[in-house]
Amino acid sequence: MDIQTYIKDMARKAKSASVVLRGKRAEEKNSALQRIADLIQMRQESVIEANRHDLVQGKNSGLSAAFLDRLELSRSRVDGMVQSLKEIAAFEDPVGQVAGVRRPQGFILEKVRIPIGVVAMIYESRPNVTVEAAALCLKSGNSVILRGGSDALESNRALTALIREGLEDTGVPSDAVQLVERREHEGVTWLVKQAEYVDLVIPRGGESLIRTVAEQATVPVIKHYKGVCHLYIDEKCDTEMALSVVHNAKVQRPGTCNALETLLVHQKISAQFLPRLRQKLENVRMKGCERTKKILKNIEHATEQDFYTEYLDLVMNVRIVDSIEEAIAHIERYGSNHTDGIISEDTRHIQQFVDMIDSAVVTVNASTRLSDGGVFGLGAEIGISTDKLHARGPMGLGELTSYKWVVRGNGNLRT
Amino acid sequence: MDIQTYIKDMARKAKSASVVLRGKRAEEKNSALQRIADLIQMRQESVIEANRHDLVQGKNSGLSAAFLDRLELSRSRVDGMVQSLKEIAAFEDPVGQVAGVRRPQGFILEKVRIPIGVVAMIYESRPNVTVEAAALCLKSGNSVILRGGSDALESNRALTALIREGLEDTGVPSDAVQLVERREHEGVTWLVKQAEYVDLVIPRGGESLIRTVAEQATVPVIKHYKGVCHLYIDEKCDTEMALSVVHNAKVQRPGTCNALETLLVHQKISAQFLPRLRQKLENVRMKGCERTKKILKNIEHATEQDFYTEYLDLVMNVRIVDSIEEAIAHIERYGSNHTDGIISEDTRHIQQFVDMIDSAVVTVNASTRLSDGGVFGLGAEIGISTDKLHARGPMGLGELTSYKWVVRGNGNLRT
Repeated sequence: MDIQTYIKDMARKAKSASVVLRGKRAEEKNSALQRIADLIQMRQESVIEANRHDLVQGKNSGLSAAFLDRLELSRSRVDGMVQSLKEIAAFEDPVGQVAGVRRPQGFILEKVRIPIGVVAMIYESRPNVTVEAAALCLKSGNSVILRGGSDALESNRALTALIREGLEDTGVPSDAVQLVERREHEGVTWLVKQAEYVDLVIPRGGESLIRTVAEQATVPVIKHYKGVCHLYIDEKCDTEMALSVVHNAKVQRPGTCNALETLLVHQKISAQFLPRLRQKLENVRMKGCERTKKILKNIEHATEQDFYTEYLDLVMNVRIVDSIEEAIAHIERYGSNHTDGIISEDTRHIQQFVDMIDSAVVTVNASTRLSDGGVFGLGAEIGISTDKLHARGPMGLGELTSYKWVVRGNGNLRT
Repeated sequence: MDIQTYIKDMARKAKSASVVLRGKRAEEKNSALQRIADLIQMRQESVIEANRHDLVQGKNSGLSAAFLDRLELSRSRVDGMVQSLKEIAAFEDPVGQVAGVRRPQGFILEKVRIPIGVVAMIYESRPNVTVEAAALCLKSGNSVILRGGSDALESNRALTALIREGLEDTGVPSDAVQLVERREHEGVTWLVKQAEYVDLVIPRGGESLIRTVAEQATVPVIKHYKGVCHLYIDEKCDTEMALSVVHNAKVQRPGTCNALETLLVHQKISAQFLPRLRQKLENVRMKGCERTKKILKNIEHATEQDFYTEYLDLVMNVRIVDSIEEAIAHIERYGSNHTDGIISEDTRHIQQFVDMIDSAVVTVNASTRLSDGGVFGLGAEIGISTDKLHARGPMGLGELTSYKWVVRGNGNLRT
């Protein structure tokens, strides 16, 4: 079968499954999720074994430590997936909610939450995305076509097999969750052009992947772009807080998109702050601007390109700025509109930063790592949107639904 | 200047204006709208004169009566535009609304309504769209680039000049509203690729226009597709109501996208219903299926292609069906997911229809013409979205905004 037919077949099957799924009650979807959780728990050894294949292959092909960290499914991460499935099952069903109002003309106008239909997820290394995307789509009544990275193929195969088994066991069409197993790049191209069957494409990954998808898609896309996240340390701030927030944002899990990449420090406190920071973040490889290098003598030089880079690793750019305006201008230029924050005690500066920074999430005196669907109370997230349409920032269950309007009248006419 | 540079310049100016507009208070935006309303009222003769040029040209080039109706700016339609501007000024500002919650981790999570940024409107004949789109974008803090149809160029020029004058008079950058005056088709192509400056494209018009935009755009698109709207007259229904609703949906303003195009009638009541309908809709040219033609002997035959057609004129298809399932299947096949309705007294059938019809608006015992932002209480509408993402159905002020998340903490970390 050629790749175009292979993809179109999947899309058509996903659409048919979505019509059945749309009619499933909350309890039916939840018992499917529960069954999938049980299967992953019972067969976790098979998942970890499949993941081990991917890890060995990844090490042999020279993937970075941070990349391998994202790829790895430890026992505790599998437990995390099971936990996440149970949490999603326990959430309120986002579908079927009705908000109604009687209009002056006498009819009732209802806005009814419905599933979107068919979602295509195109993503890279992290295999837990496979389970969370499938679970969130199922819960919200959507079919999903998963196109994960080649580096995680065995892990994704093992997980998808368990998910489909769980669906079959509970009377949900297994085609509601399908994995693109063929590796041709044209697979992605065809997938994002199936406007007849696919309602939404969510790409998560590197710049070139997202650019390709955005250029080729005729299906609507919600981009989950890279996170070149910034913290700006204002002149007037709690230095202890600044140190602990920067440490958390950079070190707690560097391989994630909401981890800190570039630190901006007001020049007035830089001589006092930076040496302490160097000490606190001793495992982090720092790259500095000229002025930073005068204070932290033995660090590397941060190039223009470095400031655009999402390291996803224990590497961080440091730049000294003369004012909050310079910090805002830096973020405007080099940022990716994902998550950017300020550490400050100056309420005027805080509001200026919040108003001017055009990012999905703006943090004030808090770690950028808090930019997360779970932390925000949206349940497991399907991604962090850097677009402005439909969904922005952490995207959870509610963002996987659409709505229809229902006019209930008694012969009402337009006058 | 080549067309690419011309468009890019406009887009860049629109972006700069949008940054200023983002910071304008509700009162400032409202006095601009009020000033524009006053200018249009004071200079309505100049607008009507410009429109007369378009109408003469349109008649000469053989445009249909329905098309010319959509193009015409009568004194009462100009009054309607002025009224609409005042209503939009009186609406609550959709920008700046904040919903906040304290999360268990101790920080405050705020969801703040913000403008989208720059909107590109690509539309066809109706010049009142020029004013309503500009007003809705201004009110919601967005810049707009208007690309109207060639048939309305003089009307749009006159209206845009007054709008820009009103902006200048009230201290808003006039580049917040710009009209693409050059007519090269590549203008549209370049406009929908300005992802660096333009945040949203809204095409309204014919199938080929929308298809071209959807295929070429790298900017997110919300499609406002044609309205092949249906009414299904169920076996058990109030015949008098059915007659008056069909009459209103077809005749009250046939040139609009929510007007009725195809009527489906249950066979059990067809022999009794159709002759009365023929009498009631005497000015409507009917096209019927084979069975319809046995009852209404002198009408034309409805071809397969007719059932896909949006007439926007006093023409209507009529088809007899044997069941509600057949009606639903017809709408699934030939419909455009815009607005479709049922006339029925059977509550089970009503719910079946509401659940199964995958349209933006589903009407029950009411005219399809009620599918409208004004009627729904959204204010003047910018269009009726047939997409499922971001906005569905009538799209008003709220749908022209995005949001950002603000995390207000006191040193909060991710654990």
